[in-house]
Amino acid sequence: MVYRVGLLGLGTVGTGVVQILQRPGHPLLRAVDIGAVGVRSLDKPREVQIPPERLTTDLERIVSDPEIDIVIELLGGLEPARSLILKAIDHGKQVITANKAVIARYGAEIFQAAAQAKVSVLLEAAVAGGIPILQPLQQSLRANHLQAVWGIINGTTNFILSQMTQEGISFEEALAIAQARGYAEADPSADVEGWDAADKIAILASLAFGLPVEREHIPCEGIRDISATDIRYAREWGFTFKLLAIAQSSPRAASSAGPSRLDIRVHPTLLPLTHPLASINGVDNAVLVQGDPLGQVVLSGPGAGRGPTASAVVGDLLTLIAHLQTGAQVPNPLLGFPPLLPFSAGGAEPPQLQVGIPLAELEAEFYVRVLAQDQPGVIGAIGTCFGNHRVSLESITQKECHREQAEIVILTHTVREADCQRAIAEIRQLPQVAGIPGLFRVLR
Amino acid sequence: MVYRVGLLGLGTVGTGVVQILQRPGHPLLRAVDIGAVGVRSLDKPREVQIPPERLTTDLERIVSDPEIDIVIELLGGLEPARSLILKAIDHGKQVITANKAVIARYGAEIFQAAAQAKVSVLLEAAVAGGIPILQPLQQSLRANHLQAVWGIINGTTNFILSQMTQEGISFEEALAIAQARGYAEADPSADVEGWDAADKIAILASLAFGLPVEREHIPCEGIRDISATDIRYAREWGFTFKLLAIAQSSPRAASSAGPSRLDIRVHPTLLPLTHPLASINGVDNAVLVQGDPLGQVVLSGPGAGRGPTASAVVGDLLTLIAHLQTGAQVPNPLLGFPPLLPFSAGGAEPPQLQVGIPLAELEAEFYVRVLAQDQPGVIGAIGTCFGNHRVSLESITQKECHREQAEIVILTHTVREADCQRAIAEIRQLPQVAGIPGLFRVLR
Repeated sequence: MVYRVGLLGLGTVGTGVVQILQRPGHPLLRAVDIGAVGVRSLDKPREVQIPPERLTTDLERIVSDPEIDIVIELLGGLEPARSLILKAIDHGKQVITANKAVIARYGAEIFQAAAQAKVSVLLEAAVAGGIPILQPLQQSLRANHLQAVWGIINGTTNFILSQMTQEGISFEEALAIAQARGYAEADPSADVEGWDAADKIAILASLAFGLPVEREHIPCEGIRDISATDIRYAREWGFTFKLLAIAQSSPRAASSAGPSRLDIRVHPTLLPLTHPLASINGVDNAVLVQGDPLGQVVLSGPGAGRGPTASAVVGDLLTLIAHLQTGAQVPNPLLGFPPLLPFSAGGAEPPQLQVGIPLAELEAEFYVRVLAQDQPGVIGAIGTCFGNHRVSLESITQKECHREQAEIVILTHTVREADCQRAIAEIRQLPQVAGIPGLFRVLR
Repeated sequence: MVYRVGLLGLGTVGTGVVQILQRPGHPLLRAVDIGAVGVRSLDKPREVQIPPERLTTDLERIVSDPEIDIVIELLGGLEPARSLILKAIDHGKQVITANKAVIARYGAEIFQAAAQAKVSVLLEAAVAGGIPILQPLQQSLRANHLQAVWGIINGTTNFILSQMTQEGISFEEALAIAQARGYAEADPSADVEGWDAADKIAILASLAFGLPVEREHIPCEGIRDISATDIRYAREWGFTFKLLAIAQSSPRAASSAGPSRLDIRVHPTLLPLTHPLASINGVDNAVLVQGDPLGQVVLSGPGAGRGPTASAVVGDLLTLIAHLQTGAQVPNPLLGFPPLLPFSAGGAEPPQLQVGIPLAELEAEFYVRVLAQDQPGVIGAIGTCFGNHRVSLESITQKECHREQAEIVILTHTVREADCQRAIAEIRQLPQVAGIPGLFRVLR
């Protein structure tokens, strides 16, 4: 049996997929025929040889072509990707996609459609590139009660932070290097504001915790405000800056009723240098999964790029072909998305988790850098403000003076964020204080 | 549909499996009924409640019971585990096992039998405990031409080496601590001699490289000869000691004919502190996989213990049940073992790899510690011996003197092991030399 693949998009990743299929590393891939490739321009020079009659600009035709068994969507962006995926499902095609933006926003719609049409939608490449993370969450780790998924899942920002740390340069300088190397786009907002990481943690969280996660419920802070100074001070105290995407179940206070909550967020974080995610540098990604009775596993590797992403796409293709060859009548239930599994069939309830916790309600340690006039009593005044809001301090240190200005760096104990924010607001009003350029969470 | 499980063994891991099944984290597990549990003694107090009529000492009956759909073998050891697995297959049962020793030795026999009977044999728990490694090698990473698998896959020895490094204690002292904590057995040979790691790398290699690996073809050196002194000197030069299990394809010299070779071995190794495996400490395991076009991924986490191992066993159970629920007629071909896949069906050849390379033919850098009389000229004499056998040196250092004895530590460049061994033999004959207590490979 030959499986006809329709490829939507022949950019970086699409080219990588064709390269693997033209030099297959696994015998099952010899059963694959690239039936059609949808591109924007027929004339563009290509790195791979595709018979001209199989190249087309008519993507609608590919997803409705009865000769095509499997559609691989590598267009990126929301439209026409979403519509083409839905139309492919409608025509009974199996679908593979690397499109985190579409899945993070329209995953429920897409997986509902796939369940009705009894086809699979696989997306290993959408999160953390070549690192196997979705299939392990769906299969090998699935016996666990998962408690937390922490990820460094945006290579661009990890590269920028690594450069800032290693070279002592500013965010702008590191961004320019990332752009020069092709790791960051001309408009880097989706990466540096944390939006890409938020798309990915939405997908990871919905898999890990078995419920739909609305992208808008994810508080998201980027890395633009991190300075070389903050990185240096953090280092002196044994911390490193990472843009973390976090999803973890958070039990409510015993006193309050209602379900547990899913704490999900993306923000720069100070991690101890001994933390398993602290040593993930450059464009690499890593995902830490904690579960009961598993404990912690960390999966790390290349989070983007042609080869790793194509490896994940073709891994999904192999998974699909193997499944189809068994004579299965329906998609593998583990490879769907949990919100669509028949919880009720086993008499089970869907998980009782309320998604999203306002940052103000969370607890963390905080790193704060205050610029103040170099006068006696300023440390006392700052300390008093924290005390007024029950923010207990681990240390408060005067670091440097420039032109009568002092830098005062504070590390708090674990406190409620709302309390810390109120103390910060009060400190901003102190006549000796010129500004608070650094305020970041510390996790361990 | 209810799936009846027959559990062979109710020790540490078996108890963990029952605990998960009695508090299932996934709705599919509610379809599992523990039909029978085979134990050695009916009277032993148990941590889990099993209806007495389901406990039996008659393991043969479980594997032939027509009511049982899935047999989970957690006995360990070669017999009766091997015979019971084969008999279960013979009776059409699906099989899950955590038994690396049986699979490393009788894997070919077992997977042949399973292919004939059209049942699956899953064994995620057999290698690296709770870390998802076999399924990723079988699925997500399978599109790659894999080049290397390096693993820290024995938690006992990793704990001992970590203790020796952190506390500066001897092998014997660290072993005693490991035994006191239950990480090492009274007879620790299988762990400290590297045999357990060799079983596991045999399994990883046969999956990664698609060919049967005979356990006897794996050169294996343990960690007994590593001293606190060697660990300290290695540290000074930026290296740490790890017991590495290695499987990598090694191209033949261009001049010689014949297939490429699979370099597979287990031995203590000096790794640079910056290596991704250098930071894996305590009883944790980690596996590094390198492939084309993937690059490198590292999967790390708890390599043993009740919870992690039970997590992997029940992950396999979920995988099996999901597969059976799809109406599949045959096992998933990706979840078998490659040597049994129909390579010929796609017109493909089985991989041309000759398994096993004598250590003498390999190349590495070497760390050598020589005890010699503290006399002028001894460094020159040692250097000359290395030069006689074309072993070029990166450094040769006199470290310490006790009672007219000097310790001389040498780091070579990359050389052929046979050349290094010949130089060592010559150095042993030098009148000034009292012994060579340390000789280890350095990999990067």
